[in-house]
Amino acid sequence: MSEPFSFTLLKTDGAARRGEIVTPHGKVQTPAFMPVGTQATVKGLTPEAVAATGAEIVLGNTYHLMLRPGAERIAALGGLHAFMQWPGPILTDSGGFQVMSLSALRRLEEKGVTFRSHLDGAMVELTPERAVEIQALLGADISMQLDECLGLPAKREEIERAMQLSLRWAERSKRAFEARARDGYALFGIVQGGDDPALRRDSAKALVALGFDGYAVGGLAVGEPQETMLTIVEETVPILPAERPRYLMGVGTPDDLLQAVARGIDIFDCVLPTRNGRHGMAFTRYGAINLGNARHANDPRPLDAESAHPAARTYSRAYLHHLTKANEMLGQVLLSTINLAYYQDLMAGMRTAIAAARFDDFQATTKAGWAQGDIAIL
Amino acid sequence: MSEPFSFTLLKTDGAARRGEIVTPHGKVQTPAFMPVGTQATVKGLTPEAVAATGAEIVLGNTYHLMLRPGAERIAALGGLHAFMQWPGPILTDSGGFQVMSLSALRRLEEKGVTFRSHLDGAMVELTPERAVEIQALLGADISMQLDECLGLPAKREEIERAMQLSLRWAERSKRAFEARARDGYALFGIVQGGDDPALRRDSAKALVALGFDGYAVGGLAVGEPQETMLTIVEETVPILPAERPRYLMGVGTPDDLLQAVARGIDIFDCVLPTRNGRHGMAFTRYGAINLGNARHANDPRPLDAESAHPAARTYSRAYLHHLTKANEMLGQVLLSTINLAYYQDLMAGMRTAIAAARFDDFQATTKAGWAQGDIAIL
Repeated sequence: MSEPFSFTLLKTDGAARRGEIVTPHGKVQTPAFMPVGTQATVKGLTPEAVAATGAEIVLGNTYHLMLRPGAERIAALGGLHAFMQWPGPILTDSGGFQVMSLSALRRLEEKGVTFRSHLDGAMVELTPERAVEIQALLGADISMQLDECLGLPAKREEIERAMQLSLRWAERSKRAFEARARDGYALFGIVQGGDDPALRRDSAKALVALGFDGYAVGGLAVGEPQETMLTIVEETVPILPAERPRYLMGVGTPDDLLQAVARGIDIFDCVLPTRNGRHGMAFTRYGAINLGNARHANDPRPLDAESAHPAARTYSRAYLHHLTKANEMLGQVLLSTINLAYYQDLMAGMRTAIAAARFDDFQATTKAGWAQGDIAIL
Repeated sequence: MSEPFSFTLLKTDGAARRGEIVTPHGKVQTPAFMPVGTQATVKGLTPEAVAATGAEIVLGNTYHLMLRPGAERIAALGGLHAFMQWPGPILTDSGGFQVMSLSALRRLEEKGVTFRSHLDGAMVELTPERAVEIQALLGADISMQLDECLGLPAKREEIERAMQLSLRWAERSKRAFEARARDGYALFGIVQGGDDPALRRDSAKALVALGFDGYAVGGLAVGEPQETMLTIVEETVPILPAERPRYLMGVGTPDDLLQAVARGIDIFDCVLPTRNGRHGMAFTRYGAINLGNARHANDPRPLDAESAHPAARTYSRAYLHHLTKANEMLGQVLLSTINLAYYQDLMAGMRTAIAAARFDDFQATTKAGWAQGDIAIL
């Protein structure tokens, strides 16, 4: 017996929220960070290794999975949980963002979007109904509506057109999702409206009127300054119902997470910890560290002796430097692991702080650590 | 307190031997297979993952480590065990093989070999004494003498010259090793002589007269047919003392291991399970399987439901196929793991069979499995 989807708001501290999401595949403590498992794998990490970082939920990409190996194939193999051997909750995006960013040729219509696959050149159609169907085939605990995602800056009329289209697609997504009667599973709507606060408010109000299990703020982290992103979050969040989870899509740096939680966001996903890890960069409580730098070559210290994760406590910087310079796969694996563990540590710290009504203190301490920076060995 | 090096012959079954090596960093049950950790890492696998395949000892490459990050640096960081976080026994080769196979420009003299580093173009000298020094700096439990390794086929006079040089280097290696008084650590001599049985016998006799802690058969698996390799093993092994371990360097396929153990070999190393794993090939009890093949795309079966390792029992062939086609790092990690686990299963099976005096049966059963081949799903 799987439990139906629910969100419980356990505690607030200012705008910051401590909550719990229940899904058919388990619980998620919020604020939460979701590692990105684009092609049915968090790159280089076994599911056990992902879980050992503290992650409770992962994200899968509809765009990639529909093209390869295909949603129907994954369904025939028992769904995405079985396919990738991740027993916990999975959220899938709708594919809208990747259609815009990855496919060269595309035709956007009221009905949906038709694009050329970057893998084999085949023309593929994605409609709100098909996006819902694919996510049902994958077995996602949380599905996302199809939306149109613009880069920023963009013209106001263009932003408004895309926002209105996304709203009509939200309605069709909801209808399609309800027709499937996936009891206990969730569908989130996505607020659009670019960097225009008024359009964002209109979008949020219209979505809330439709009614979703949760609400995402989409179309951010697409080139705009952090200040713009946070302003949009501030304008949007008050319109969203307190009793539903709020998801800021594709965000972000550790500081982005801290600032967005302070403004009432509950869930995040981002490729940054894994992508930067594959390129020799570590996130730590003393800021970002480039392991490719020669200053680490003789440094016997671990990246973070106080980390909850053994990889951050055990391997020397000299070893991680060596693996990075030698372009060894294990360097990419260990730094991805260490970064995901740091992100999860940060989220856990925020959860504890909110529960204890000392989120401001936690913010100040965390920022002071980043500002202090890494101390080179003498 | 570390234990001194020893080898105990526990049981024989025909020429096959069941034994135990004790090193300062722990015990190794033989016949044993050593995963190759070229650049201070078994590619893509954490030390815990390597140990979980059943490996008790790993191999490190002197040539690679002396060039990057450097032997003195590793020594200053506490030695190779600490550097790569592998607490168990380590055997290092002497660098001779890679000097011949990897460095473009080299000058071979009585004194040693001078070569151009493939990394930065620097001219580097490697002598028998320096090879021993480097391996001491790394902290290898088992060091190998520097030898000259030829490809095959080669002319007899060339083979004899290299064999005689390797013998003189063996003597210098032993003297240098003893001067360091690394009590409890071991130095192995290397039998050379190409595909010439008489030269092989001469080399083995001269090495035994010098006296080493163990004896390797080197200069094989360099292009000759398996039959030639096995003939050389058959000619060499009877000359080697029963109370010392015997190591067949750089070998090989699962069948090579079976055949060589049947002829009295105790230790192996080879990149095959990890290198082929990185290229989508799995070794199983039903032979080699190419996961890139489209026939696996919809196959929900694991690679080997009876494997002792969860990775071989858990992930579907369809998933491994997907990861391989998508060129995902996790595919390389999982297939390397699965292959190393299969190699360790095979060695464990041989050990049990020898102890029970039924090695012939084990050979027959194992070969029958390989001959049966993989059965495609209907």
